[in-house]
Amino acid sequence: MKLDYIDDFEAWKADFLFYTPVTVRFSETDMFGNMNNVSTFIYFEQARIEFLKAVGLFDLENNQKTALIVADLHCDYLAQAFFDEDLKIYVKAGQVGNSSVDIHYMAEKEDGLVCFTGRGRLVKINIQTGKPIKFTDDEKEKLTSK
Amino acid sequence: MKLDYIDDFEAWKADFLFYTPVTVRFSETDMFGNMNNVSTFIYFEQARIEFLKAVGLFDLENNQKTALIVADLHCDYLAQAFFDEDLKIYVKAGQVGNSSVDIHYMAEKEDGLVCFTGRGRLVKINIQTGKPIKFTDDEKEKLTSK
Amino acid sequence: MKLDYIDDFEAWKADFLFYTPVTVRFSETDMFGNMNNVSTFIYFEQARIEFLKAVGLFDLENNQKTALIVADLHCDYLAQAFFDEDLKIYVKAGQVGNSSVDIHYMAEKEDGLVCFTGRGRLVKINIQTGKPIKFTDDEKEKLTSK
Amino acid sequence: MKLDYIDDFEAWKADFLFYTPVTVRFSETDMFGNMNNVSTFIYFEQARIEFLKAVGLFDLENNQKTALIVADLHCDYLAQAFFDEDLKIYVKAGQVGNSSVDIHYMAEKEDGLVCFTGRGRLVKINIQTGKPIKFTDDEKEKLTSK
Repeated sequence: MKLDYIDDFEAWKADFLFYTPVTVRFSETDMFGNMNNVSTFIYFEQARIEFLKAVGLFDLENNQKTALIVADLHCDYLAQAFFDEDLKIYVKAGQVGNSSVDIHYMAEKEDGLVCFTGRGRLVKINIQTGKPIKFTDDEKEKLTSK
Repeated sequence: MKLDYIDDFEAWKADFLFYTPVTVRFSETDMFGNMNNVSTFIYFEQARIEFLKAVGLFDLENNQKTALIVADLHCDYLAQAFFDEDLKIYVKAGQVGNSSVDIHYMAEKEDGLVCFTGRGRLVKINIQTGKPIKFTDDEKEKLTSK
Repeated sequence: MKLDYIDDFEAWKADFLFYTPVTVRFSETDMFGNMNNVSTFIYFEQARIEFLKAVGLFDLENNQKTALIVADLHCDYLAQAFFDEDLKIYVKAGQVGNSSVDIHYMAEKEDGLVCFTGRGRLVKINIQTGKPIKFTDDEKEKLTSK
Repeated sequence: MKLDYIDDFEAWKADFLFYTPVTVRFSETDMFGNMNNVSTFIYFEQARIEFLKAVGLFDLENNQKTALIVADLHCDYLAQAFFDEDLKIYVKAGQVGNSSVDIHYMAEKEDGLVCFTGRGRLVKINIQTGKPIKFTDDEKEKLTSK
């Protein structure tokens, strides 16, 4: 399957540096014994927050003037994951625009199999006005530091 | 099974007037095909809020001076519930104290089978100080109106 | 914003016939008082299942030989939704292929504002082999009946 | 506050050996910025499964003849927990009966504050008949080994 946010899968995969470990919880499985489709977005959120903390940009979400908001989210399900599986949720910044950034996600099983991938755009906004604000050069540099 | 918050089950059951309908969602089932144990507390919360709105006390939770906070929650699992089952989540006030009230819950299937029951204490507090505040007579009356 | 699965927004919107009502639960809000981003995918799942039941294709997911599996999911967040808001989650089939179908989603507030949209591909597979199976003409007709 | 499953709080607390670390997820907070009340039961479930694996009794839940089912669950909320807080979820076996065991839970913050406690009974049943089965001596010993 060709995904429109991935040109060359091996190159795209090799480019990830940061990950957060998660274990599939019992309450995150469904009646067919699989990790529920909804759970991937819980993991993306957790991993994205850890990534933003790691690159020093989580304050962007916490201060009173600006925020990073989620404009869209996407997940491609490549293989099933199961109860109690340990997954690495990799995160990296894709294209960085003036006031938005594409965040990419990849979930890898212990044996190296990639079971789901995804992406989603974050937009830096002024909380008062709701309008987009440009990233500073420092912020752009931080986003692509891991 | 004898539950310590229920003296006479039939009398206790007959005393409920208010309910909220819920349908067990696919994402609320687990790998054994059953409604997950965690879901009952999601339903209790939804039904409690609907109950408080119905008796005219939900503002207690929303205004800036006082709040109703959950002190404890309990659930007894009597029978399995399954994906897509329609349940009635009954709610009523049990014992009303000076500044706290015991809320009782009962989930009934379409055929009348009670599949889980529960209770939990709400405490009216002053948001600033965190200390308990006495219910007014009007509030006590509202709590036991349904 | 231009979304790649929507040519003409008004025409796309007018084309929906089926919806499922949901109310944003307290447990589905986050610390900023908004509906959590994850919740939209819970609503999509619930509405998709109701849609498949309504068009008579839910058995596809339940029988022992074939299943409809989710290949990908996408959500675009257009406006905030809040605790206790009543939303209509509209569902329709987009493009129907040989063995897969694009399902489209649209969430509308009571005042008519569209607060999020989405899409995701379902694939009909043979459960034993995991391989795609062609839709019958009857199934294709049912998919586009609502 | 006096809890009916705790005689002497300090002794009860000192008796825990096993814990699972959890971090409060963003999706587990609510609109008042607090960890949602429902989340404690997700943590209890995760910690209970880790405990059963650690004492060598998780197979009880997985084999085809017997299962450990949850008969009831209880949580007492002692102090608020917040987004991104690291908690230790302690688990131990309380009273072990013929075919059931009381599992106790305690959540501790990094500074040592206990923010919620709980308990819940597990029953060993025959999956075919649904009837209780006696624990073996070996199982009783394992349950109280941590």
